[in-house]
Amino acid sequence: MTANIMNKGLLIVVSGPAGSGKGTVNAHLLNSGEFVYSVSATTRAPRPGEIDGINYHFITKDEFKSRIERGDMLEYTEYCGNFYGTPKKEAEDVLASGKNLILEIEVEGAQNIKKKYPDAVLVLLLPPSYSVQEARLRGRGTETEEKIRLRLERAKEEIAFANVYDYVVYNRDGLDREAAEEIRAIVTAEKSSVSRNPHIAENYLNN
Amino acid sequence: MTANIMNKGLLIVVSGPAGSGKGTVNAHLLNSGEFVYSVSATTRAPRPGEIDGINYHFITKDEFKSRIERGDMLEYTEYCGNFYGTPKKEAEDVLASGKNLILEIEVEGAQNIKKKYPDAVLVLLLPPSYSVQEARLRGRGTETEEKIRLRLERAKEEIAFANVYDYVVYNRDGLDREAAEEIRAIVTAEKSSVSRNPHIAENYLNN
Repeated sequence: MTANIMNKGLLIVVSGPAGSGKGTVNAHLLNSGEFVYSVSATTRAPRPGEIDGINYHFITKDEFKSRIERGDMLEYTEYCGNFYGTPKKEAEDVLASGKNLILEIEVEGAQNIKKKYPDAVLVLLLPPSYSVQEARLRGRGTETEEKIRLRLERAKEEIAFANVYDYVVYNRDGLDREAAEEIRAIVTAEKSSVSRNPHIAENYLNN
Repeated sequence: MTANIMNKGLLIVVSGPAGSGKGTVNAHLLNSGEFVYSVSATTRAPRPGEIDGINYHFITKDEFKSRIERGDMLEYTEYCGNFYGTPKKEAEDVLASGKNLILEIEVEGAQNIKKKYPDAVLVLLLPPSYSVQEARLRGRGTETEEKIRLRLERAKEEIAFANVYDYVVYNRDGLDREAAEEIRAIVTAEKSSVSRNPHIAENYLNN
């Protein structure tokens, strides 16, 4: 991905722990038409109702490994014996079209993206506080106490890496549209930043 | 001005050459209620219709000089034998109240502010292009050709300092509200930035 492509659309990483409401916030961004969500590739089997090319690109392990070798993955991770990753070509096409690409990945993937693409914008979406997060997870009533504890422990670990990110956005109860607007504002600001626009004077004087 | 105060409201410098429509854009920001415009102090005589405390704080040269000596001026400049400056106390009060303070100053003053207050946000407001700027200045029909030439020359000099600023916002014809929205987005983003929020994890876990 060249600097030229990065100048068109923005590569935005949105990470958020369980209970941050990441899915809802990202859905608002997609509905605005200025953002595209990256469809990940995975080697795990489709679950009932999942559609190839919509929920995931379902591919074999051999295919995934050869894509890694060819450098065709923007980032990838292994989890419970399966690979998950972002196809590079698809990401490049989105950015070249001028749309902003959202990657919904965890803190480790976010760090890898920032190393490879310093121009990427890293946003950490958080519940307003740990106590609200806990209340949200328990309020779902769908998970075992053990799973809730694991998720909360994981969230504590993740927040220690907050300084990896460029921005923190809090998703307050019932204010997920506002959180999405805040992410849109971040994108607007980043596109106006002098550091992303190196030829201000030349462009201005020649037009 | 302490870091603590800076965390409340943002200090925003808006510079713009003649024809950038800075006055109109700033008026939109003031109307939003989230911004306060700093009333400058000056040693020049009031023009007909100008009101002390609204357009300027009109003070004597002796008073101005003793304010500089006491460190009571956030920034100041001398122009055509008169002093112009931003009273520090007023600026601090605005920021402490949580409102964002707009300083409408030129590139030299902007550089001085950035040196003293690295947390200040510097925005350069520009017409969409030099040719549009020229057309706007001529279109006013109120200034001599010589004065227009001087202003355009000055604008060429100023734009060479674009990299002093953090952001560039273009004020397109008839889109001054959009330019103001872009500045609001910049302020929103800056307030969400991790670099301005050093205690994310502690605050999160303790609430």
